[in-house]
Amino acid sequence: MNIISIIEKKKLCQPLTKEEIEFFVNGAADGSIPEYQLSALLMAIRLNGMNREETVNLTLAMAHSGDMMDLSSIEGIPTDKHSTGGVGDTTTLVLAPLVAACGVPVAKMSGRGLGHTGGTLDKLESISGLSIDLTEEEFLRQVEDIGIAVVGQTKNLAPADKTLYALRDVTSTVDSLPLIASSIVSKKLASGAQAIVLDVKTGAGALMQTTEDSIELAKTMVRIGCDAGRKMVALVTDMGEPLGSHIGNALEVKEAIDVLAGRVEGPLLTVALELGARMLLLGGAAETVEDGKAKLQEALRSGAGLEKLRQMIAAQGGDPACCDDTSLLPRANYIQELRSAETGYIASMDTIRLGNAAQAMGAGRKQKTDLIDHSVGYVMHKRIGDHVDKGDLIATLHAKNPESAGEAGKEILASLHFSQAPVPPCKLIHAFVDGE
Amino acid sequence: MNIISIIEKKKLCQPLTKEEIEFFVNGAADGSIPEYQLSALLMAIRLNGMNREETVNLTLAMAHSGDMMDLSSIEGIPTDKHSTGGVGDTTTLVLAPLVAACGVPVAKMSGRGLGHTGGTLDKLESISGLSIDLTEEEFLRQVEDIGIAVVGQTKNLAPADKTLYALRDVTSTVDSLPLIASSIVSKKLASGAQAIVLDVKTGAGALMQTTEDSIELAKTMVRIGCDAGRKMVALVTDMGEPLGSHIGNALEVKEAIDVLAGRVEGPLLTVALELGARMLLLGGAAETVEDGKAKLQEALRSGAGLEKLRQMIAAQGGDPACCDDTSLLPRANYIQELRSAETGYIASMDTIRLGNAAQAMGAGRKQKTDLIDHSVGYVMHKRIGDHVDKGDLIATLHAKNPESAGEAGKEILASLHFSQAPVPPCKLIHAFVDGE
Repeated sequence: MNIISIIEKKKLCQPLTKEEIEFFVNGAADGSIPEYQLSALLMAIRLNGMNREETVNLTLAMAHSGDMMDLSSIEGIPTDKHSTGGVGDTTTLVLAPLVAACGVPVAKMSGRGLGHTGGTLDKLESISGLSIDLTEEEFLRQVEDIGIAVVGQTKNLAPADKTLYALRDVTSTVDSLPLIASSIVSKKLASGAQAIVLDVKTGAGALMQTTEDSIELAKTMVRIGCDAGRKMVALVTDMGEPLGSHIGNALEVKEAIDVLAGRVEGPLLTVALELGARMLLLGGAAETVEDGKAKLQEALRSGAGLEKLRQMIAAQGGDPACCDDTSLLPRANYIQELRSAETGYIASMDTIRLGNAAQAMGAGRKQKTDLIDHSVGYVMHKRIGDHVDKGDLIATLHAKNPESAGEAGKEILASLHFSQAPVPPCKLIHAFVDGE
Repeated sequence: MNIISIIEKKKLCQPLTKEEIEFFVNGAADGSIPEYQLSALLMAIRLNGMNREETVNLTLAMAHSGDMMDLSSIEGIPTDKHSTGGVGDTTTLVLAPLVAACGVPVAKMSGRGLGHTGGTLDKLESISGLSIDLTEEEFLRQVEDIGIAVVGQTKNLAPADKTLYALRDVTSTVDSLPLIASSIVSKKLASGAQAIVLDVKTGAGALMQTTEDSIELAKTMVRIGCDAGRKMVALVTDMGEPLGSHIGNALEVKEAIDVLAGRVEGPLLTVALELGARMLLLGGAAETVEDGKAKLQEALRSGAGLEKLRQMIAAQGGDPACCDDTSLLPRANYIQELRSAETGYIASMDTIRLGNAAQAMGAGRKQKTDLIDHSVGYVMHKRIGDHVDKGDLIATLHAKNPESAGEAGKEILASLHFSQAPVPPCKLIHAFVDGE
């Protein structure tokens, strides 16, 4: 077998065999295939596609290119949730404690944020002392003890994906359905969860901007997961605007705590309950979606969810006092109100620009090596469909300094598009996809 | 300008601007763009193509990525011929002396052979003492003095093409019309000839195996040449079987001398006269193709062509005595006759396999660093359309040893396909392409 003939086949639109796919994936993982050949193959895949069987084989090969986490020592069905990434998307911090409080073990390996979307690990690191670098043994023991752990991926998780993703990023081959789907699902398979709920974001701030493309991605991923023998379903949820009102690491942790404490409702809670109910269903702790939601609501009402978050923070070395006093979270030096220069109904938002505004404030990374300022970000007070008068409060900026606040304010205002006619609020859940 | 957005455009089938093409070509030449990005772009070009303007811009950018030879000191119109490569294709050694003898300066920079076709430089180096490594000054002075020089390319001729060609070879992106055409023509433009006759081979042993593809390649190259302000025409000639009867370096030199000495006629001479007549026409030394052929025939008859070859060999440090006694050329240790195991008409030949058989004997290179044995090869005694009886002489093998002869013999016999019904001989000239 040789890589040139594999590139040749894909160039000629021929499907690759399982052995051919394993050959190039292993060559990507161990560095034996030069990057210039991998990138030519990636472009051929981007332009000529992959069929269902190829995509499943690619995903399995990438998952098996490194360590496969073994969660069999955990009682129950270890369950995970994965979001394709969005702005103000704090669902993990809301639903993971609620789901764990309902008895379904949540063993989650998460990624860092890059680009305009935040990462769960970065948010968690806002909490004083909390570590996301657990050994495999510590991770398993924590889930066995308290039913929940949210940690960073081990270094050797799907190493082929690391190589291929880094190449895709610099060769304009990110936007390929089989490559996106296999990249996401391979890491989920390798991290060992038996049941996985995918949150595929759709709209202006998402990887896939149309509902059709998002549903197609959801179907592709769910098919792979089911073909690989895992329980997997997906919800296609809205990212036409930030999901929560808080954007920025410590701000998002605060919002999650506010939700778990019962002080705040709204779209973030709604979507977290929808996703969480599916996790309970797959995890065997609910009979129906409605039953799952009722159980989650009870965990919310009783404070069991917030208590689970306290336990997790403590177990990972963090100070759980922030769960009772969010003012203990990092706070920005400079807080400023942002007021509207226009009158009208908010018709749409340039959500990527909103994400980039937070990134520019210091809340996110442009490059992997960038340092994050956990305290900065902003709180949006308006959503699509809201009527705004000139001078109304649009957002509260939490910035390093007045200059940074000024720049972010300009970007946020420029991201809002107004209409004089009334605009309905966004639909939050666009589709549900399961293996059938 | 950045390379990722250039890859992105080509991935989306958008034409690249002159500036974008110059950016990546210069980046290929100076090494500032990583190979993994170049190879992704090459695959996007292979799959999404390039329009006429892009192809011209690519060719000009590659030509200008290194030295541009200035032949303006040469009196007359410096004329060149380029073949896309074939087996037993010794036309350069026949036509260059004849054309020069008719007063048109032939200033030719040639390449080495790689794969199943031989290179003119390797053939010339069969001649004792002859050097193909002339400085630019020596090259110009020789053409000014005697009207002919055939030398190796200078190191800095189209360096971008060197990088891109090496990558194409290992990323399955050789078979792209704009990439093939720009690679060939860029080197011709850089080597300075004002008039260029292209010999585009077609058939089983050629780069392009169908007449349609070969005509398309010829048209593409001629358009580029004319758009770049050079006189350029192309003939599409047959490579369904070896052109000359001799295959191997010294053997091909012997055949060229035999033709120039008037001892041998046949397809090699016919094609050389067709190409040479076009060179005389473009070079201003003939009024019509027929006039050109008549002048070349007279140079052949008078011995002026062979005398020009003697002059060239002497000028480049070689011993011209081989022109009068071809037994002075390198001779193989082991000569063996190859006889037919079948009876019938030769219907077709696997010409690539025939080329590879000579390569395996030592006449060609599999890798750039392979050393060539100038003495080995074989003489074919039969052509397509010939009737052969079992036991008839098919070829005479010139080998290192009996084992090598045995292997080559098997390959040659396996390359021949017989028919019981009569088969017409191959048409030699399939098409003529000019700028209109």
